[in-house]
Amino acid sequence: MIYLDNCATTAVDEDVAYAAFEMMRKFYGNPSSPYGLGREVLRRVTEARHQVAQVIGAPTERLFFTSGGTEANNLALQGTLAALNKKGRIITTTIEHASILDTCKYLKKQKYDVVFVPPQNGRIHAKDIIDAVDENTQIVSVMAVNNESGEILPIKEIAKGIKKKNPRVIFHCDCVQAYGKLLLNLNEMPIDMVSMSAHKIYAPKGCGALYIKEGVPFMPLVYGGKQESVIRPGTENTAGIIAFGKAANNALKNIRKDWEYVSELNRYLREALKTIEGAVINSPEDGMPYVLNISLPVLSTEEWLHIFRMNNICVSGSSACGRGEKSHVIREMGITGKRADSVLRIGLGKKNTKEELDIFMNLIKNTYKERNLNYEQNQ
Amino acid sequence: MIYLDNCATTAVDEDVAYAAFEMMRKFYGNPSSPYGLGREVLRRVTEARHQVAQVIGAPTERLFFTSGGTEANNLALQGTLAALNKKGRIITTTIEHASILDTCKYLKKQKYDVVFVPPQNGRIHAKDIIDAVDENTQIVSVMAVNNESGEILPIKEIAKGIKKKNPRVIFHCDCVQAYGKLLLNLNEMPIDMVSMSAHKIYAPKGCGALYIKEGVPFMPLVYGGKQESVIRPGTENTAGIIAFGKAANNALKNIRKDWEYVSELNRYLREALKTIEGAVINSPEDGMPYVLNISLPVLSTEEWLHIFRMNNICVSGSSACGRGEKSHVIREMGITGKRADSVLRIGLGKKNTKEELDIFMNLIKNTYKERNLNYEQNQ
Repeated sequence: MIYLDNCATTAVDEDVAYAAFEMMRKFYGNPSSPYGLGREVLRRVTEARHQVAQVIGAPTERLFFTSGGTEANNLALQGTLAALNKKGRIITTTIEHASILDTCKYLKKQKYDVVFVPPQNGRIHAKDIIDAVDENTQIVSVMAVNNESGEILPIKEIAKGIKKKNPRVIFHCDCVQAYGKLLLNLNEMPIDMVSMSAHKIYAPKGCGALYIKEGVPFMPLVYGGKQESVIRPGTENTAGIIAFGKAANNALKNIRKDWEYVSELNRYLREALKTIEGAVINSPEDGMPYVLNISLPVLSTEEWLHIFRMNNICVSGSSACGRGEKSHVIREMGITGKRADSVLRIGLGKKNTKEELDIFMNLIKNTYKERNLNYEQNQ
Repeated sequence: MIYLDNCATTAVDEDVAYAAFEMMRKFYGNPSSPYGLGREVLRRVTEARHQVAQVIGAPTERLFFTSGGTEANNLALQGTLAALNKKGRIITTTIEHASILDTCKYLKKQKYDVVFVPPQNGRIHAKDIIDAVDENTQIVSVMAVNNESGEILPIKEIAKGIKKKNPRVIFHCDCVQAYGKLLLNLNEMPIDMVSMSAHKIYAPKGCGALYIKEGVPFMPLVYGGKQESVIRPGTENTAGIIAFGKAANNALKNIRKDWEYVSELNRYLREALKTIEGAVINSPEDGMPYVLNISLPVLSTEEWLHIFRMNNICVSGSSACGRGEKSHVIREMGITGKRADSVLRIGLGKKNTKEELDIFMNLIKNTYKERNLNYEQNQ
């Protein structure tokens, strides 16, 4: 099996999975409990909180664990707006993940003034976001890296620009795809909230985190115990949290090395694709190397996915959360027709090799040969 | 170490922890992905859904995974009320878990007419709940077993009585402590929603479930992908879910055997406590044997917990979610003074032994001896 869908999720690292296993078997106490076992678990949760926070330069005590990126994104928008208790303007982009877009659509129904800023010539421009900020703007939410194209959005420019125009605006950044891959330091830009997810960086699914800057108004969405400073009550997913901490530590330690390695894989794949008739690269040249979005218009996405599936190669057409629906990101990038209908997202990771990419490319070449495909006949 | 806090959380079973480990390492795909690995994960998630559902006789497709019991309880109340979109009456008891009580307090602030029914003579009576039902009642939420006293509440009588008085009332049952221990069959009583938690039955923390009967109005609290039939979007905690399924299966298979075994431990402990001067049992005689709530008024809860901690015995004073706060359940049961200030909750489980209980009892006896304690001097 060749796994080329590392943007959807990742294989948990052995040391990370073992850390989770050890929490379940040995350190199974409840971190709120008053005896040694509970206190040891609490100590480990706090250590993991520090490990996850330090990747983005956040203060440990302002990092709150959630059940994943979707919950973090929802908490960021809904929790802050509930606390502000006023219906103003919300600004986001049209290429966000479903957990931001669908939350914003819900908020629009709740009579918030939601502005969805589209890309111009395929890219999101800071100026367009900043121009949309007015006196009534409450939150701006923009992702750091797009999960389908790999586009790196101008977060720093946006953060500074919107704060300059209206200092009361709260800036939330969905860093689910960027976290642990792209170097991001909160000390270099005025970001108020950051969403993260464990399973994109070789930790298990079911754990995420939200950083909330001190002073940002917030009301929880669920009520119960005093866990996570009452920002997010409920018994902690201790195995997932400790695994997330370990994975965050691994990611930070190797962040430059992994970036270089995956950049080399990305270059290798781009080079190989030049020999494929009609192949188009949809990802920007300066995108994050972990995602390569391409179109192979001689067949449709569904046909390609069938071929890959039959050959035990894991690749997707778009975000897993969209479950085979046409990608809104590709549409918003202005990609249409056969090119839009033949999109493939290759999610590269530290575990992939050039040999795997060779097998992937050979399958594409053989498919052309066997089916006698050429670009013109399919135009 | 002796672990006597199985109501707070449990040590994950080895086969259950291994199932989670295997999901992380081998079956790490995203269940929404279109290739073999993703489909295999989806198949396993569906199997786990069936395993969790069958414990209560629920249809598999109406069982939705959550991040735990707290989220399940919040979804049950908030999700249904959001869909009903009308501010009527909510009925609950004063001895519910914080995730119900605090949600109800929040709803009261939102101008819902919330009725908190207290115990009479230490017990919740079905008649008091049914009497509170009126034309405007939207939801009744009552737990199956109290997490601090072990009291088994008259769920069947409540369910039938409230439906008879007003068939439009939605009945939610928090089964977090009862699930997998007390036999509960939805086919025998008109329950509309049931909350469950994995970590109370030897599965990891961070996973739970909510059963929602078909036709019950519901609006999600978070927005995003199409996971869990859009009832609860976000990438599935696949390792936690598969572990929950396995643990549910284990629990169902041994439900009578474990009940008998723990009943024997409970009887043994009750018998031994008779020899302790001033010891009082706060749990009802006919409670669930997995919880034994006692008072040892010669010292305070804090003093006892310190002694147990020093001797590596894990016992708590009340719910872990309350973090050392005085128990609202004990107060509502009408227990006051020194008896209330010396409460201990012993959470028994299938892994405990009589030998462990002997060590626990000997520590109590030795403490009396060493400190020359007697009941009268402390009255």
